[in-house]
Amino acid sequence: MAEKIYSIAGIQLASTYAGIRKTQQDDLVLIALSDKTTTAAVFTRNAFCAAPVVVAREHLQQVRPRYLLINAGNANAGNGKQGHDDTLACCQWLADETGCKRSEVLPFSTGVIGESLPKEKFAKAIPDVCKNLNEGHWPPASVGIMTTDTVAKVVSMQEEINGKKVTLTGIAKGSGMIRPDMATMLAFIATDADVSSLVLQQCLQESVNHSFNRITVDGDTSTNDACVLMATAESELSIHSTDDKNYTLFQQLVQKACEALARAIVKDGEGATKLINIVVSDGASERECLDVAYTIAHSPLVKTAFFASDPNWGRILAAVGRAGVNNIDLEAITIYLDDVCIVEQGGRSSSYTETRGQAVMDQSEITIKVNLARGKANATVWSCDFSYDYVRINAEYRT
Amino acid sequence: MAEKIYSIAGIQLASTYAGIRKTQQDDLVLIALSDKTTTAAVFTRNAFCAAPVVVAREHLQQVRPRYLLINAGNANAGNGKQGHDDTLACCQWLADETGCKRSEVLPFSTGVIGESLPKEKFAKAIPDVCKNLNEGHWPPASVGIMTTDTVAKVVSMQEEINGKKVTLTGIAKGSGMIRPDMATMLAFIATDADVSSLVLQQCLQESVNHSFNRITVDGDTSTNDACVLMATAESELSIHSTDDKNYTLFQQLVQKACEALARAIVKDGEGATKLINIVVSDGASERECLDVAYTIAHSPLVKTAFFASDPNWGRILAAVGRAGVNNIDLEAITIYLDDVCIVEQGGRSSSYTETRGQAVMDQSEITIKVNLARGKANATVWSCDFSYDYVRINAEYRT
Repeated sequence: MAEKIYSIAGIQLASTYAGIRKTQQDDLVLIALSDKTTTAAVFTRNAFCAAPVVVAREHLQQVRPRYLLINAGNANAGNGKQGHDDTLACCQWLADETGCKRSEVLPFSTGVIGESLPKEKFAKAIPDVCKNLNEGHWPPASVGIMTTDTVAKVVSMQEEINGKKVTLTGIAKGSGMIRPDMATMLAFIATDADVSSLVLQQCLQESVNHSFNRITVDGDTSTNDACVLMATAESELSIHSTDDKNYTLFQQLVQKACEALARAIVKDGEGATKLINIVVSDGASERECLDVAYTIAHSPLVKTAFFASDPNWGRILAAVGRAGVNNIDLEAITIYLDDVCIVEQGGRSSSYTETRGQAVMDQSEITIKVNLARGKANATVWSCDFSYDYVRINAEYRT
Repeated sequence: MAEKIYSIAGIQLASTYAGIRKTQQDDLVLIALSDKTTTAAVFTRNAFCAAPVVVAREHLQQVRPRYLLINAGNANAGNGKQGHDDTLACCQWLADETGCKRSEVLPFSTGVIGESLPKEKFAKAIPDVCKNLNEGHWPPASVGIMTTDTVAKVVSMQEEINGKKVTLTGIAKGSGMIRPDMATMLAFIATDADVSSLVLQQCLQESVNHSFNRITVDGDTSTNDACVLMATAESELSIHSTDDKNYTLFQQLVQKACEALARAIVKDGEGATKLINIVVSDGASERECLDVAYTIAHSPLVKTAFFASDPNWGRILAAVGRAGVNNIDLEAITIYLDDVCIVEQGGRSSSYTETRGQAVMDQSEITIKVNLARGKANATVWSCDFSYDYVRINAEYRT
């Protein structure tokens, strides 16, 4: 949770318990956007995407959104035509209540896959939640979107870009790329900067590509993932072109916020006891750096070794070897755990001792650095370890 | 274990305890090939491959092999130049003892990665093991190559191809694509057919591609994997071209043997409680069928659901959705567990009941059938479930 949570002028939030989830905890969140607000969004690349994702994509192409309607407890995924109709009905009820168009509502759902959306609960709760909108309600909103997350995830920052103050606040949920039957990651970030739609979309895509798209708990991509960036145009900072001298600084700020939320998700990963930063450098291309990083990040053998705090360099080197990089020179590669060299010249580093390796492995956050020694590209991916609790959570969820 | 194990004229085997592994169980196996025997082999595609793999590949290109020297307990992987020299030394000792050339020896190692090969133990044991060669020693050889396997894996079959009797016997080890620090899969198969080298290599590649290359326990490809096919030319069955009318029948027989050993490996997978057959049919290409099959096979969420005997159709459908198949029509796909339809029209089948799904899931062998409804290609992959024991075995191995 951020130390200080700044409100964003032009963004109001509300949260209530509608009874969609079984436990008595807020499960319906409304975010209202001022009419000047521009909105960008990215969605899951899973072909099997949930009804709200389909509807949100459609609505976003039609008009400027005025409301985000988010529920936890039910993903409305795998429900066929009925799921699509249910989502539209919920948007319509909110439109009727607020006087906006149905297409001005973007719907988001997270929770169990394959159970019908209890839409009558939306009908009942929507009037209440509309009365509760407030610029200061980021904290209850961050809790209302949680499913099996163990902590709320909020980021908030205020900085000056060329003398102009800009504020950013965001919330996210997700504690696994996909949860047991859970359709997972949602993030909503708002800023008071004045940014035109196309620029905002470009900014979000760049930022997500280096943050949310670089985390993995189990390699399973959810059917409901979405990330939304809203800009309310209340600050003096205006950016209407990616060539604007302030664009890069602004994009870096957004990326910093995304990265903080993304790391918070991995840290809260299912059964995770360790956050693993995987930094691959000096590759011939970013693509091959990512291939190597993901092969390490997804290896159950590497992940179980980290759970056991075992500095098992052979498993990391074997993962590099099978990452599919052409003509890789394994003799030239070096691998470090934090600042301890574990692999050089195709085998265990001569300077390595189990004691030094063990000292690194005993920490709760560890960086694996792989230097491919064949170019200038690099990439970073965030992952976590693989524990008994991962199996327990995923095997026993429905029992 | 096969019911009856046929000897193969022209192949002798021996097994002994050389002290390479800690437990008192045979760890050095010798296979002697008659001078008429042709040999084909395939090796790991991991760029980080072990010293014996490098040497065996080199030797195989130079001359017709006369001996296979196999040890368990030490993979001789990740040992740099020293590892390479140690492997050559062992081959030389065997050459000195038997009067063959060093290059006529193919070395194979399986066991812990990154520990020096105790080559002096080879020097001491080689004279003994040479005295013990016998055509009937397939069973002790099958045990001698085991590492953490819980059962020995032997296949043996005798059939007639166009009136000519042919015999095939093979052994394999491996109980995970990679074991904790273990470099895993080895298979040695012999036949008395008379098959020229190039035809034998083609036959092995085809057979492995549809058997050993279609199994996965954890997606980690070992540094030491190897599969060898020997043909002793003692039977009347002669095949010297892939156009020979008997080639296809012979190749199918070899594939059947490979498949039996491959399935035995998955069944004995780390912590596995279930064998999962994944059959993807009616795809536009074999490649996309394999992409779908492997995405299901590698999904930790699918694997933990099977461990829990949970017919979790949403996880299977989500895996199909993220397999990267272009323009996939999720509405047209059907998914079955054995003969129970679980998914149709983008959601749970209307005919599905939890009772029927549960009855299938309670079995120890289950088939997931995915019909992509867009072509005529198909592919089968074998996998297993993901249990607490997988985490335990891989997390606690070195403690």
